Amino acid sequence: MTRTYNSETVAELLAVAEALADAARKATLAHFRGADLAADSKETDRFDPVTVADRASEDAMRAILAERRPDDAILGEERGTKAGTTGLTWVLDPIDGTRAYLSGTPTWGVLVGLTDADGAVLGIIDQPYIGERFIGAPGHARVTGPQGTAPLRSRVARPLADAIIFTTFPEVGTPEEGAAFHRLSRRCRLTRYGMDCYAYGLIAAGQIDLVVEAGLQAYDVVAPIAVIEAAGGIVTDWQGRPAHNGGRILAAANAAIHAEALALLSQVPDA
Amino acid sequence: MTRTYNSETVAELLAVAEALADAARKATLAHFRGADLAADSKETDRFDPVTVADRASEDAMRAILAERRPDDAILGEERGTKAGTTGLTWVLDPIDGTRAYLSGTPTWGVLVGLTDADGAVLGIIDQPYIGERFIGAPGHARVTGPQGTAPLRSRVARPLADAIIFTTFPEVGTPEEGAAFHRLSRRCRLTRYGMDCYAYGLIAAGQIDLVVEAGLQAYDVVAPIAVIEAAGGIVTDWQGRPAHNGGRILAAANAAIHAEALALLSQVPDA
Repeated sequence: MTRTYNSETVAELLAVAEALADAARKATLAHFRGADLAADSKETDRFDPVTVADRASEDAMRAILAERRPDDAILGEERGTKAGTTGLTWVLDPIDGTRAYLSGTPTWGVLVGLTDADGAVLGIIDQPYIGERFIGAPGHARVTGPQGTAPLRSRVARPLADAIIFTTFPEVGTPEEGAAFHRLSRRCRLTRYGMDCYAYGLIAAGQIDLVVEAGLQAYDVVAPIAVIEAAGGIVTDWQGRPAHNGGRILAAANAAIHAEALALLSQVPDA
Repeated sequence: MTRTYNSETVAELLAVAEALADAARKATLAHFRGADLAADSKETDRFDPVTVADRASEDAMRAILAERRPDDAILGEERGTKAGTTGLTWVLDPIDGTRAYLSGTPTWGVLVGLTDADGAVLGIIDQPYIGERFIGAPGHARVTGPQGTAPLRSRVARPLADAIIFTTFPEVGTPEEGAAFHRLSRRCRLTRYGMDCYAYGLIAAGQIDLVVEAGLQAYDVVAPIAVIEAAGGIVTDWQGRPAHNGGRILAAANAAIHAEALALLSQVPDA
């Protein structure tokens, strides 16, 4: 981010972001583990509660933006793009991890991000069921949750052999991308699966070292990038370039382990 | 369970089980995501916070049993076996999912189970960070958590092709056991990893259909069996036999999907 924001502007934008996350929390919990989700298989052919929750969540966020930030652009997973005039774009994933949501697992999240021409400005990773919110912006890096509020700070460097790496699915994209992931993960101490966007929060919270994924969209990564960078970590693509447009993601707790992981992942040529 | 328990006895035993889970919740949260866990790699060689939390959790539970149920037996992961005279054994896993705990992921749990000569009598799967507790006993099947208290009822039958299956690690035991798991999981709609004991709670809560694992211990399964059976589900080994001593586990939401999964898993000969 080259453009700078004064602390009042950041506070104002963060207040909007928190209002969006609050609205999405309510909309997504209204259907989570609900009777409609537990409906038997005959029902699921005509009613998809994940889609209903996804759209209700994004619509609730867009309604707030229409009122409080009418001139900003919007990029949302469900409702597409709305143009703006301020140079700022709200990047919204109303439910990141729909398969987790569908399974009752509390590792899906609501992602609220904001970009300017240079990349991510601020982001929120919210987990509605746990009531946990990871927040990152210039001068802000904190988590609020069941145990109160705590600062976010990513881990100091440690050898790859001591590192914890996460990804959501063991397959990780194409066969070639998957092979690269496993070349890296075999050198780590511990590999874990299934956490969706929650894993990015764990990097920011200093709990794990790496998250590697492929095939992501901008709305999957803008908020995680803002949260992790505010906490001291680094997010790039597999060639070390900016990642806020999505694609192959390497999120790391610090520069040293980012470089170690990049040396292996960058062997995969651009798709 | 052949022996029957009147409702007063069940209520009394459940009150003890909840007291154990309360004590374990406090002991495990004291170290979860703590500064000691985030210590750099030089520290981890001389201090293992997971082991510290594991032992503190089990010791806290044993202290309560010494006072309130001194004549019952105990089988705990960390402190082994204590003999008893009542025919009842408390089966304790102070932290199920130590790798999840070490990673800051809220999918580990405290498992409190009680067995008699015939198998599981009651069980609690507790997730301290979320503040969520799955409870199963004769006449009791409920979850308490962020959204209050709700009854537990496992899903009605649906075809394997519509089912959601969970396991913790993609490898699932030996190569032969892993191959059997993947033969089954390929026929399901959705396979998810990484949930540890939390996945058993999701069966009881009617969110998923199957959990399949191998190489488990008694303390990993007694509490899940009690919770799932109280909610209407079925847990056996891969030959359809009682599973409360551990080994290969097939947990299912209902008899129909249990039979479908068993037909595939039972092809693996006994180890």
